[in-house]
Amino acid sequence: MAVYTDITDAELEAFLAAYDLGAPVSFKGIAEGVENSNFLLETERGRYILTVFEKRVKADDLPYFLGLMRHLADRGFPSATPVKDRKGRDLQTLRAKPAAIVEFLPGLSVRKPSVAHCRAAGEGLARLHLASEGFSGRRGNDLGQPHWAAVFAPLRKQAEALKPGLSATIEKDLASFALSWPRGLPTGAIHADFFPDNVFFHGDQFAGAIDFYFACDDALAYDIAVTLNAWCFEADGMFNATAARAMIAGYETLRPLSPAEKAALPLLAHGAAMRFFLTRLHDWDATPKDALVRPKDPMEYERKLAVHREGLHLFSERA
Amino acid sequence: MAVYTDITDAELEAFLAAYDLGAPVSFKGIAEGVENSNFLLETERGRYILTVFEKRVKADDLPYFLGLMRHLADRGFPSATPVKDRKGRDLQTLRAKPAAIVEFLPGLSVRKPSVAHCRAAGEGLARLHLASEGFSGRRGNDLGQPHWAAVFAPLRKQAEALKPGLSATIEKDLASFALSWPRGLPTGAIHADFFPDNVFFHGDQFAGAIDFYFACDDALAYDIAVTLNAWCFEADGMFNATAARAMIAGYETLRPLSPAEKAALPLLAHGAAMRFFLTRLHDWDATPKDALVRPKDPMEYERKLAVHREGLHLFSERA
Repeated sequence: MAVYTDITDAELEAFLAAYDLGAPVSFKGIAEGVENSNFLLETERGRYILTVFEKRVKADDLPYFLGLMRHLADRGFPSATPVKDRKGRDLQTLRAKPAAIVEFLPGLSVRKPSVAHCRAAGEGLARLHLASEGFSGRRGNDLGQPHWAAVFAPLRKQAEALKPGLSATIEKDLASFALSWPRGLPTGAIHADFFPDNVFFHGDQFAGAIDFYFACDDALAYDIAVTLNAWCFEADGMFNATAARAMIAGYETLRPLSPAEKAALPLLAHGAAMRFFLTRLHDWDATPKDALVRPKDPMEYERKLAVHREGLHLFSERA
Repeated sequence: MAVYTDITDAELEAFLAAYDLGAPVSFKGIAEGVENSNFLLETERGRYILTVFEKRVKADDLPYFLGLMRHLADRGFPSATPVKDRKGRDLQTLRAKPAAIVEFLPGLSVRKPSVAHCRAAGEGLARLHLASEGFSGRRGNDLGQPHWAAVFAPLRKQAEALKPGLSATIEKDLASFALSWPRGLPTGAIHADFFPDNVFFHGDQFAGAIDFYFACDDALAYDIAVTLNAWCFEADGMFNATAARAMIAGYETLRPLSPAEKAALPLLAHGAAMRFFLTRLHDWDATPKDALVRPKDPMEYERKLAVHREGLHLFSERA
């Protein structure tokens, strides 16, 4: 929800000279994406999103992200296609920061997803996983389970400040993940941040996904777990099992889950909640009080962790 | 540069039901306008800007602003035309706030205007003044000269905090304005905020103006004075007489100034600098430290005031 980097008309003109897109017609900063600066750019050729990558995104990872977006788009998945410059490069530099132009992807994100939206999001995620097959890029999940204990270590006090006793509870979770985190599940390139604001619809039909800047190689079912957490909890913190089952059913219309994936899903969802709790706790602590972007409340994910400790019932007893 | 009001997809759908614009295709918060929340809205029919008016804009003034935009557009001035709802109304309500849809106006604003841009902006402002003739709306300038002393009275301490001695200097200015503020100049509907971020270009040709939410009835030459201050100072605080003369020459190609207007212009520019100094001083003091929008620095206009106290030389000696 922020535009960090301010681009002058002269800088835009110099930047666009490297592309074959014609003269700019309109250029507006948009409130999309928390990590980067995004601009809606219209040129004589069409409409695009110009993204300036701010410091949180590692420049070395950008070829993976942009390569995955192109791979997906080439295979018919509705992802914004990166636009190559005249020299065939996906990436350019703007204000000494990496920057890319991608095609404009129409669609509306939903704030309060219905069960139908959850079903369609599940289908969309399965389409993404199927389309990502054969992608040659490789990027480990640097926010995956093996990293969580190290992320939490310096944040114990902050956890205690949020809720006395929370630190010990988190460490118990982390120990349990270390012992029993699922191995050997089908892996591939995953979105890893398939939240409602990154998913577009036309009506209640899936229309595309944006913001691939957490994408990485990991278990496909872990991507479902992230998505369940993001879409299938009510504002009051209650888990919506109907929405979750619809999401999984939507996913399975295109890519049926193996018994091992189904069995692992509750634990993966518990871990996925930990991943977002930890990064929010870190950002909550690290963000200056006068920052332009308000950090997201870690307590939302603390409550989801508590739900997961009780265990999810995602499949009917006979499944 | 802010999106204050968050609109859900369900709220957008309910809002659009009052219009004949078809279903929404895309909807993005944009970083345009400091006072209101603006969204780029694409529907099956076309592209629009949806504005939600935040508290600083008085709801009673909105018919004047929107009426002026329609009046200008009807007379060929490139201003965003308000879109009427099915009942013929320019204004609707969204999240209990007034809201309007206007047509999308293409064009790029310039951050560092060239002399050619200043000339074109002058022409554009003259076009606006000529097109506003015959507009039947009436709205006094509630930020005009008669109001400045009352605005400043509670801000003396803040002025002293910025710069010791500033309070007395400002009061001397205000007394001088009260005694000799120009009367009897040609008046009409003026934009009153014709800053570079509110003016669009195609290349260096004037392409339109947006953000009419300070428009009011006042001396047309006062609008030129506001514009000179906004466009014709360098980043180091120096007045750029070449740019100013180009702006006035551009203006005069369409609407020649009377001798009285020319004579008044330096004092009007001094006063226009006071108006922006005062509102920035007020906002600087009133904005909480953790606000999402950083207030603009009042010292920029304090330096412009100092330039104006020396007197501008806008016209050659023989003029």
